[in-house]
Amino acid sequence: MSENIGSSIHDLACRLWPINRSITGAGVRETLNVLKELLPKLEVHEVPSGTAVFDWTVPNEWNVKEAWIESADGQRIVDFKNHNLHLVGYSTPVDTIISLEELQTHLYSLPDQPTAIPYITSYYSPRWGFCLSHQERLKLKSGQYHVHIDSTLEAGSLTYGELIIPGESKEEVFLSTYVCHPSMANNELSGPCVTTYLAKWINELPKRHYTYRIIFIPETIGSITYLSKNLNHLKQNVIAGFNITCIGDNRDYSFLPSRSGDTLSDRVALHVLKYHAKDFKSYSFLDRGSDERQYCSPGVDLPVATVMRSKYAEYPEYHTSLDDLTLITPEGLEGGFTVLQKAIETIENNCIPKVTVLGEPQLGKRGLYPTLSTKETHAKVRTMMDMIAYSDGTISMLEIAEIIKKPMTEMIPIYRALYDCGLLIDVKEKL
Amino acid sequence: MSENIGSSIHDLACRLWPINRSITGAGVRETLNVLKELLPKLEVHEVPSGTAVFDWTVPNEWNVKEAWIESADGQRIVDFKNHNLHLVGYSTPVDTIISLEELQTHLYSLPDQPTAIPYITSYYSPRWGFCLSHQERLKLKSGQYHVHIDSTLEAGSLTYGELIIPGESKEEVFLSTYVCHPSMANNELSGPCVTTYLAKWINELPKRHYTYRIIFIPETIGSITYLSKNLNHLKQNVIAGFNITCIGDNRDYSFLPSRSGDTLSDRVALHVLKYHAKDFKSYSFLDRGSDERQYCSPGVDLPVATVMRSKYAEYPEYHTSLDDLTLITPEGLEGGFTVLQKAIETIENNCIPKVTVLGEPQLGKRGLYPTLSTKETHAKVRTMMDMIAYSDGTISMLEIAEIIKKPMTEMIPIYRALYDCGLLIDVKEKL
Amino acid sequence: MSENIGSSIHDLACRLWPINRSITGAGVRETLNVLKELLPKLEVHEVPSGTAVFDWTVPNEWNVKEAWIESADGQRIVDFKNHNLHLVGYSTPVDTIISLEELQTHLYSLPDQPTAIPYITSYYSPRWGFCLSHQERLKLKSGQYHVHIDSTLEAGSLTYGELIIPGESKEEVFLSTYVCHPSMANNELSGPCVTTYLAKWINELPKRHYTYRIIFIPETIGSITYLSKNLNHLKQNVIAGFNITCIGDNRDYSFLPSRSGDTLSDRVALHVLKYHAKDFKSYSFLDRGSDERQYCSPGVDLPVATVMRSKYAEYPEYHTSLDDLTLITPEGLEGGFTVLQKAIETIENNCIPKVTVLGEPQLGKRGLYPTLSTKETHAKVRTMMDMIAYSDGTISMLEIAEIIKKPMTEMIPIYRALYDCGLLIDVKEKL
Repeated sequence: MSENIGSSIHDLACRLWPINRSITGAGVRETLNVLKELLPKLEVHEVPSGTAVFDWTVPNEWNVKEAWIESADGQRIVDFKNHNLHLVGYSTPVDTIISLEELQTHLYSLPDQPTAIPYITSYYSPRWGFCLSHQERLKLKSGQYHVHIDSTLEAGSLTYGELIIPGESKEEVFLSTYVCHPSMANNELSGPCVTTYLAKWINELPKRHYTYRIIFIPETIGSITYLSKNLNHLKQNVIAGFNITCIGDNRDYSFLPSRSGDTLSDRVALHVLKYHAKDFKSYSFLDRGSDERQYCSPGVDLPVATVMRSKYAEYPEYHTSLDDLTLITPEGLEGGFTVLQKAIETIENNCIPKVTVLGEPQLGKRGLYPTLSTKETHAKVRTMMDMIAYSDGTISMLEIAEIIKKPMTEMIPIYRALYDCGLLIDVKEKL
Repeated sequence: MSENIGSSIHDLACRLWPINRSITGAGVRETLNVLKELLPKLEVHEVPSGTAVFDWTVPNEWNVKEAWIESADGQRIVDFKNHNLHLVGYSTPVDTIISLEELQTHLYSLPDQPTAIPYITSYYSPRWGFCLSHQERLKLKSGQYHVHIDSTLEAGSLTYGELIIPGESKEEVFLSTYVCHPSMANNELSGPCVTTYLAKWINELPKRHYTYRIIFIPETIGSITYLSKNLNHLKQNVIAGFNITCIGDNRDYSFLPSRSGDTLSDRVALHVLKYHAKDFKSYSFLDRGSDERQYCSPGVDLPVATVMRSKYAEYPEYHTSLDDLTLITPEGLEGGFTVLQKAIETIENNCIPKVTVLGEPQLGKRGLYPTLSTKETHAKVRTMMDMIAYSDGTISMLEIAEIIKKPMTEMIPIYRALYDCGLLIDVKEKL
Repeated sequence: MSENIGSSIHDLACRLWPINRSITGAGVRETLNVLKELLPKLEVHEVPSGTAVFDWTVPNEWNVKEAWIESADGQRIVDFKNHNLHLVGYSTPVDTIISLEELQTHLYSLPDQPTAIPYITSYYSPRWGFCLSHQERLKLKSGQYHVHIDSTLEAGSLTYGELIIPGESKEEVFLSTYVCHPSMANNELSGPCVTTYLAKWINELPKRHYTYRIIFIPETIGSITYLSKNLNHLKQNVIAGFNITCIGDNRDYSFLPSRSGDTLSDRVALHVLKYHAKDFKSYSFLDRGSDERQYCSPGVDLPVATVMRSKYAEYPEYHTSLDDLTLITPEGLEGGFTVLQKAIETIENNCIPKVTVLGEPQLGKRGLYPTLSTKETHAKVRTMMDMIAYSDGTISMLEIAEIIKKPMTEMIPIYRALYDCGLLIDVKEKL
């Protein structure tokens, strides 16, 4: 799978790139329709504007036809058609001629990153504005400018996608990613694109212990909305979950824990990263900034951790036009995909093993141990004996992995061999 | 308050300096009478000699009229009138003429600190003696000396002061300091003087949640006596306490924990010192040496910690005449006062906050959050959001402060704003 | 005792050296008969071949009359008579003439240690073979060789020794050592020889709180056999235990914990080593390799730790003929003996002290404290006061030792003095 998966994910990101996503509107629907081609069972939900969701209200739906600024000589200085980021998110409609001086109060640029268009939104306070590179802004000459934003902010709905892939158990693994950022690659397109291919892989597994709940939502208002509709079910059934974002560049791996920091998700993510990514960066929940803010809030308390490549708000291209399709790479996306895949494999195989005999079993008579005793023991035999030594039916295989300092990926086939010859049972199966 | 408070405390120390305090006697009463001028509600208690107090007995009361040594030519070699430390504490009366050789067995000096008069006592074994600087001692010539101590050791009482400042709650904060050391400044006068001004400040607070119990006692026998009379009440009501000593010099800050090391007092003291005194020195309970020995003894187990400037027994002037009024400074005293003041503010405000909404609250609609989303979040907003994120009703504000790495002093006004708009409640209020 | 005990243990090792021990057979019986001279109450048990013991079966008994290889010219190339290690343990009988080429498949040597004869066994898979130094092996010329092994592998029994030394309590301290390695000194003879002298010392103690259960067994199959016969009794009564092996060389001290790592045995061993052997090496249970594998297996869970000098499998001479009587020394054996002796003294004296008065006791009136208060307190008085300060009846003397950072050996006489004057009681006595 290795070489193809990264390219496939990158291709999907390229296809979704031009769509103008926001927390509501046609762009979200169009994006979900593309994903539905790969995930036919993805269900699209609409929540009407004005719906009360916890402390919030679903806002009006925002759609844009066109938006531009023209100079007095009729030249288009800034045009939304050229880059989605040119328009401040949720800009109200306007059509007026104003002086440069007044226009400046509606412009946003980054003096420290003069070639970058910043990403600015104003969801909950009516406002209009344009974003442009600082070098373009400096070229503006005094005079009158025609400003035109043909947008609508009307009662409509908030749109999100939900995919349930059933398993043997009603217990769920929860994956959440967001689809509300226009034309940014690592933050956000890497998230829904990797998640889509993870969902495909999960769906094709011959056997799943857990049920998988996978959602594509707008950030913040979307997770709040989803929680407000599903909180009890999630609290009762979700045993682990990941917020999937910033998972496609080729640099660091990063880990951001849940609030408690010691959920199964946290332990699984740290275990996988330790073996897959030697030098990953470990953040604190104080560094949070995405939907873990909702999933881990008091009273919600879901076991949701985040594995990333370069963390949001930590890389220079973040929330600018520089976070483009060259920042994410097939290798970067594949690396992120693989870590999450291994995390899911770890969760699926995290039994509570218990040895069925007292004392060490005689592995030799089962062909599992060399018959000649010399000075050395082979590494695999050692791992097997260490697994047995800690399989007391009180701790999970992941906890044993941490104690014996071996990756779960190495232990899973050994567990199966010992299970098959009856030396280990899974206490969880009896619960 | 800042400039005046240090000077006021230093002035009080100067006034108390000449009084000859010991574990009993007129000097303690005179000292408490001075404090009563500042704390009119201070009550003076007398416990008769011979009273059994735990494993101890209140000793006879000691008073001194005069004490001196005269050489054969009638010259006063050593005179108690010149320095209280010249006389060994609890010296029995004597009037005799003896040789230098015999006199030497009653003299105490410090060869390593030749200009210092040492502080020596013999409370529980009858003995007389004089202390002098080693350089004066070396000048003594052989011959006969007239030794005269006009002291009394008679049934009387042990004297201590007690001030109760009531609050809304019957739960108490306990402050203890000692008044039994003659003419030493950091150890001891800084203690009762800072405590007096703390008591004044507490008394003038517009609102107190806790009741304050503040005592001025002789060390060891005084705390044992006080405990033997009040143990059950203290164990039932005291939620935090501090032993106040060595709090006036201008050098280090020091922390000495309670025996368990994890009481509210310990955590408050460490929190305040971390922000107020960057490089404070942290001692072990094994380094104890003052009344925490009694307050933290098995079966007593009060939550009493100690915050100091230079710790007793650790600075060179300790228990000598060099611990004088130049060693304590207005700045040093004010620093000690401020740390204890902040500790009390921390205790008073240590609620158990709980957020009243699920998910993050929409701070924007309450004017608590910028309406425009950009790359940066302001520090104060971040502190507010972190406070909310951990306000799950199971941990105190102090615990949250440690998690989010902010001082309580910064969090208290934010808590009040969130409390006022109904986003946070205090779970403690409902208990 | 010091100079003699090491020599006496070494002498015993010399006497046991020539005997050909294995997991069964005459060599084990002969060894135990020698030990019985020193420990008359040692009981010898026989468990028939074929007995099911947990997941294992007691194997046939192995005995050897002679074993050699002769070259075509009648020269004895290898002779079991010269060194017990020449014969692979549990070699089946054979008498045949074969080519060097075929012979080579039955020979074992160590190219990296060309002068050493390796120690090889094949207990559970029928096989014959010879071990020799690599330099001897290289001298072998092509041609025919007469191979002769006059051994028997027949139904018989597994033999072990057991000594119970009763104490006041039914609770037991368990010591286990093994007697199945032929002609190796640190691993194994140091184990049974030190254990024998420990047993003698325990037997001669004027007073024993605990009962001592001391066994001399073949490794692995012996401990499994012993556990299968005594598991319930051991689980109910054993409060601490040590596996005694590799305890006679003059190099490192080593510690290998129980599986849980926090049993009384672990804490005692670490405490004693900290003061007796400054630079001991601490291993993980993952480095296990002796009978702790059985004693600490899931469902057995005995509190058994291991104190060693150079750990098995870690020193170059291990499991070769280089592990001879020059590797163990009287000093090395005495050091190992002393650590175990102190561990047992620590266990015997590990009371739960509780002070009988509230507040600090007045040590002065009992002559335990200097009557004159000066700047310094003596170290012994400080230890006494620290012991009292932590004697709250909830933690053991060993826990107090760790808190106050003093060795139990220093605290035991102080405890007795305080016990005798009624200031401390032992809460355990009341249980």
